[in-house]
Amino acid sequence: MDTIVRRYWKAIEERDWDALRAVVTDDVVYELPQSRERARGREELVRFAAGYPGDWHVAIERSLVDGDQAASWITFTLDGAVAPGLTFFLLDGAGLIRQITDFWPEEFEPPAERAHLSRY
Amino acid sequence: MDTIVRRYWKAIEERDWDALRAVVTDDVVYELPQSRERARGREELVRFAAGYPGDWHVAIERSLVDGDQAASWITFTLDGAVAPGLTFFLLDGAGLIRQITDFWPEEFEPPAERAHLSRY
Repeated sequence: MDTIVRRYWKAIEERDWDALRAVVTDDVVYELPQSRERARGREELVRFAAGYPGDWHVAIERSLVDGDQAASWITFTLDGAVAPGLTFFLLDGAGLIRQITDFWPEEFEPPAERAHLSRY
Repeated sequence: MDTIVRRYWKAIEERDWDALRAVVTDDVVYELPQSRERARGREELVRFAAGYPGDWHVAIERSLVDGDQAASWITFTLDGAVAPGLTFFLLDGAGLIRQITDFWPEEFEPPAERAHLSRY
């Protein structure tokens, strides 16, 4: 199903900035809580996405819409390195994206007290 | 609304392990992609949750259910430190949680080329 979340990631993957503009509100707010960076408005969002360096790609792992909220889990690939990206969205009354919050978790070694858990 | 996701986090916050057992399938799989740790089955999940050290608390920021998927963004508090936790769930036909994938992103400093973004 071509939900607003799928349209968002398709626009980004295809570097189709007009398609990206079409799925967000004029005053969309983009936030990265890990670095407390914020982009305000459609054009600052496009500048951020268009300026992200490297030959990166995104692929959707999970995508959910629930009323005025949405969420996705993507796989971000850059120069052969693969990392998950988690995004939570708020939608306006017309179903457009009005807020985006991205999280980019890094790998870590498990603590010693969890040696009983298996690894994959 | 008392969705399966809210029941899951309420059980964990209250250390009510029978309530946690009630919202997951017997063969639930819990995964931490950042460390590639995995717990298999209801009792291993309870052991993992019950064994997590410290006087921690969880508070739901966002909670979504969409068909056989669910997701949440929580704030995890431990000894005054606050961190986000992102979780993606798969549900079985009865609406019970059959798979849990947790992500725990860390803070980072923004790259120099993004100095044009504001910070909050």
